[in-house]
Amino acid sequence: METTSRYVLLCVMICLGVHVIGAEKVLIVPSAVSGSHWFPLASVGQALAARGHDVTTVVSQDIVAKRRAERPNLRFVSFDDQGSFARIENLAGQMSEISKQSMFRIFQHTQEAFQYIFQHCDLLLGDGDLMGRLKQGRFQVVVTEPFMCPCGAIVAAYLGVPHVALLRGDPWGFDGRATGVPRPPSYVPSIISPFTDRMTLKERVRNTVMSFAVTMVFQWFLAGANNNLVIKYLGEKETLLGVVGKTDVWLYRIDVLLGLPAPTMPNMVNVGGINAREASPLPEDLELFMQSSGPAGVVVVSFGSQAKTISLERAEVMAAAFSRLRQKVVWRYVGEKPVGLGNNTKLMSWLPQNDLLGHPKTRAFVTHAGSNGLYEALYHGVPVVCTPLAGDQPGNAARAVSKGLGVILDFHTLTSETMYQGITQVITGNSYRETAARLSRLHRDQPQPPMERAVWWIEHVIKHGGLPHLRARAVDLPWYQYYLLDVTAFLLAVCTAVLGTVWYSCSFICRKMCCKSGGKLKSQ
Amino acid sequence: METTSRYVLLCVMICLGVHVIGAEKVLIVPSAVSGSHWFPLASVGQALAARGHDVTTVVSQDIVAKRRAERPNLRFVSFDDQGSFARIENLAGQMSEISKQSMFRIFQHTQEAFQYIFQHCDLLLGDGDLMGRLKQGRFQVVVTEPFMCPCGAIVAAYLGVPHVALLRGDPWGFDGRATGVPRPPSYVPSIISPFTDRMTLKERVRNTVMSFAVTMVFQWFLAGANNNLVIKYLGEKETLLGVVGKTDVWLYRIDVLLGLPAPTMPNMVNVGGINAREASPLPEDLELFMQSSGPAGVVVVSFGSQAKTISLERAEVMAAAFSRLRQKVVWRYVGEKPVGLGNNTKLMSWLPQNDLLGHPKTRAFVTHAGSNGLYEALYHGVPVVCTPLAGDQPGNAARAVSKGLGVILDFHTLTSETMYQGITQVITGNSYRETAARLSRLHRDQPQPPMERAVWWIEHVIKHGGLPHLRARAVDLPWYQYYLLDVTAFLLAVCTAVLGTVWYSCSFICRKMCCKSGGKLKSQ
Repeated sequence: METTSRYVLLCVMICLGVHVIGAEKVLIVPSAVSGSHWFPLASVGQALAARGHDVTTVVSQDIVAKRRAERPNLRFVSFDDQGSFARIENLAGQMSEISKQSMFRIFQHTQEAFQYIFQHCDLLLGDGDLMGRLKQGRFQVVVTEPFMCPCGAIVAAYLGVPHVALLRGDPWGFDGRATGVPRPPSYVPSIISPFTDRMTLKERVRNTVMSFAVTMVFQWFLAGANNNLVIKYLGEKETLLGVVGKTDVWLYRIDVLLGLPAPTMPNMVNVGGINAREASPLPEDLELFMQSSGPAGVVVVSFGSQAKTISLERAEVMAAAFSRLRQKVVWRYVGEKPVGLGNNTKLMSWLPQNDLLGHPKTRAFVTHAGSNGLYEALYHGVPVVCTPLAGDQPGNAARAVSKGLGVILDFHTLTSETMYQGITQVITGNSYRETAARLSRLHRDQPQPPMERAVWWIEHVIKHGGLPHLRARAVDLPWYQYYLLDVTAFLLAVCTAVLGTVWYSCSFICRKMCCKSGGKLKSQ
Repeated sequence: METTSRYVLLCVMICLGVHVIGAEKVLIVPSAVSGSHWFPLASVGQALAARGHDVTTVVSQDIVAKRRAERPNLRFVSFDDQGSFARIENLAGQMSEISKQSMFRIFQHTQEAFQYIFQHCDLLLGDGDLMGRLKQGRFQVVVTEPFMCPCGAIVAAYLGVPHVALLRGDPWGFDGRATGVPRPPSYVPSIISPFTDRMTLKERVRNTVMSFAVTMVFQWFLAGANNNLVIKYLGEKETLLGVVGKTDVWLYRIDVLLGLPAPTMPNMVNVGGINAREASPLPEDLELFMQSSGPAGVVVVSFGSQAKTISLERAEVMAAAFSRLRQKVVWRYVGEKPVGLGNNTKLMSWLPQNDLLGHPKTRAFVTHAGSNGLYEALYHGVPVVCTPLAGDQPGNAARAVSKGLGVILDFHTLTSETMYQGITQVITGNSYRETAARLSRLHRDQPQPPMERAVWWIEHVIKHGGLPHLRARAVDLPWYQYYLLDVTAFLLAVCTAVLGTVWYSCSFICRKMCCKSGGKLKSQ
């Protein structure tokens, strides 16, 4: 009887068009760039899998074994990307060295990385066997990280299913074009600028030029190659904007607390702090080390995936600073052990970062100001010492510091003394701890935690088969219509015609009258 | 022991700065305009009271007895507004007649209403005894409806407490200035325009001119009077933008499904559909009437608070149309009974509109396209026949129709035949019913129902003592900085200087060379 009534209910729901969310098939297409671009996407995949969905992730065959071991509850399919993933990893590993060099060298480095990113995508889309299997897989949604290449959006369009993007932001700014969101450079800093929303005239000039220049440079680097991929795999009639502009939801790994109040669109959802969570217990030896710090507490040091790129010279400077601290130090470090390492410092090749930041003994976090680490610090209310290097890090650091969460130091010029002073300042200055605690309370007080929100939106997309009603008309408008140039031209033409007619009429009447009076004068 | 541990917990929470939400004191300042501006605010007040908060509402003494009877769980305090509330009610009641007349008459009518709106606010703020009692009341938040006059924002600033605004939209567009949200007229229609986001060149021209003209006209009507109120009660140093721009959260009674995808800001929250809810059982006689309609069903007719302003001639046209329907009709109607009223039509001076729209026998809703009614129709998935009159109604209707929810008819020129055809079309055309059902499913699928969301945000404001971190820097920027005129001027000056120097240097060198060669030629 119960089975019958369930069946009847199901029939009624299907008749009413209600899509019942059960074990849906989700395809994840990560960016070809790993590290902080991969972890949040993998976490979303795991959260979806934990909700009972069948989650498949496409990765290079060079990394598939490692990924399977790390994330056993995700299904992986792989393709031969001819080593491009490994080459991008290698180039990303040189970042801290490259960031010191000339602009030309940085460009060269970036362009080389782009070539491998496109090769990676091209080989994925070109793998007929894999794409055929994906087509047969009848996925309900494709979730992607679109860093520099909208490979996932092209896959979604190819499979004809809705698309959700998860990203920190798009240095190219193409997400702005694809969502239609306005970002006035007068107070919205470029993602790669070191500014906040309070800029001097000089900074506004720099931000405006930077926003424009970055768009132009990336347009030159990326637009053609991305467009070629679209045309090659979706046909001549498709365009890059047409494909990326159909993204159903953009999940941004930002929060206004560490971002800035700026315009947003209905299909843009903030999920900043998606990776932060309550701290789990630490391994026994680490817990013992934390407890051994006494009331002075512990400083956590991590430069994220750039850890391996730090030179011994920079490491010595930092080791010397840490050795002077009253606190104990846990430092994520790979490479030759610095000579000046203090007894208070523990080196580890990998850190349970979230659990360490959530530990009651933790007093400060020395970080490269990557987005994931900063949001973990925000969640746990830990003051930060930022040593940003490149990408979004200078801006992340500037905004965190402007909110009173910590201080900023220049990685390349920092000395043992400035590092020591910086750490001491954020630990002993009460304002940093209080601000961090206040911001943490604000950040935690949300109707849905960020991960729950991300999962909710992905399931919302699945349930309704896409959300085209959230897509702004701005995306389709040509630029001259968006900026009202046609309206201005029309109004100017009307004004000119009216004024011209009035002027012509007046001068005609005047001339007539002058002629008459002239004639009269003559006749007189 | 339990008491002690509770006390310790409370002390810990207070030390941690956690504000515990209990019975907080909420002050509600409604708009001087009643009807659809009052109901949603009153519902929010009731929801807050149901959550255990102590809710006080400030109203004119002319209406306080009626309000107390309607909403027994709200506390009311009153002041003598010298009949201005009643006069505004009277002017609003003439709307359908006035909307047919000349632009000058509409202006005159509107200006008269504004005078009473300002008088109402002036008398509230000028009531020293009342304001003193409110100051002593130690409210945690002021919730207001800011239609045309930010009286509640001034009260909040006077009391020094956070402020939440609940509104459909601001015809003046001053909310745009106070939040910093961009609204490009190329695809964001003015709130009083009859357009959607798909406009022809002619419509874009009209929308641009309309957006600009309305802002200018209202600026002329309102800015001075509102500014005077600010200066009179808050001091010479305060400005209108300074006060209204400090609003912590703007709760908009819109949803992208009946609005349009357009830019929004972090302190703007959509709560469209706040008044819609599951249908309650109807009174017995009305339920019998509904059931007597058989499979043909019922058409619900309501023109909201404009019901009393419909002329007998228009009523006769409609009565004749309704009498031809296979359906039964429930019509909210006050005034002389039309001669041509059919046996199938039941007149009522008040309708349980939400419960009727949620009744399984309801087939269509004939409405003036007021925002509250349309959201109830959306919630219950009922197709609509819109006969908009003025204000936001033409735009509401146009957008509902563009989504496929129904048809639109001109109130002043409609005939019995067009009304009959309109109703028949939305009932017999499957697409309207299906679209209404699809939109209803989408609208209901939200992480929080709109009312819960509104209450959550008000409590969030209370808990953190205001949310200044959501306020965009755009609000403080002078217009020439916002629109980058200073940056443009600087860049132009630099370009001119560089080009000028190059030009001058080149011409100098050329001249020198010419002189030399000229000298050589001469000497030759």
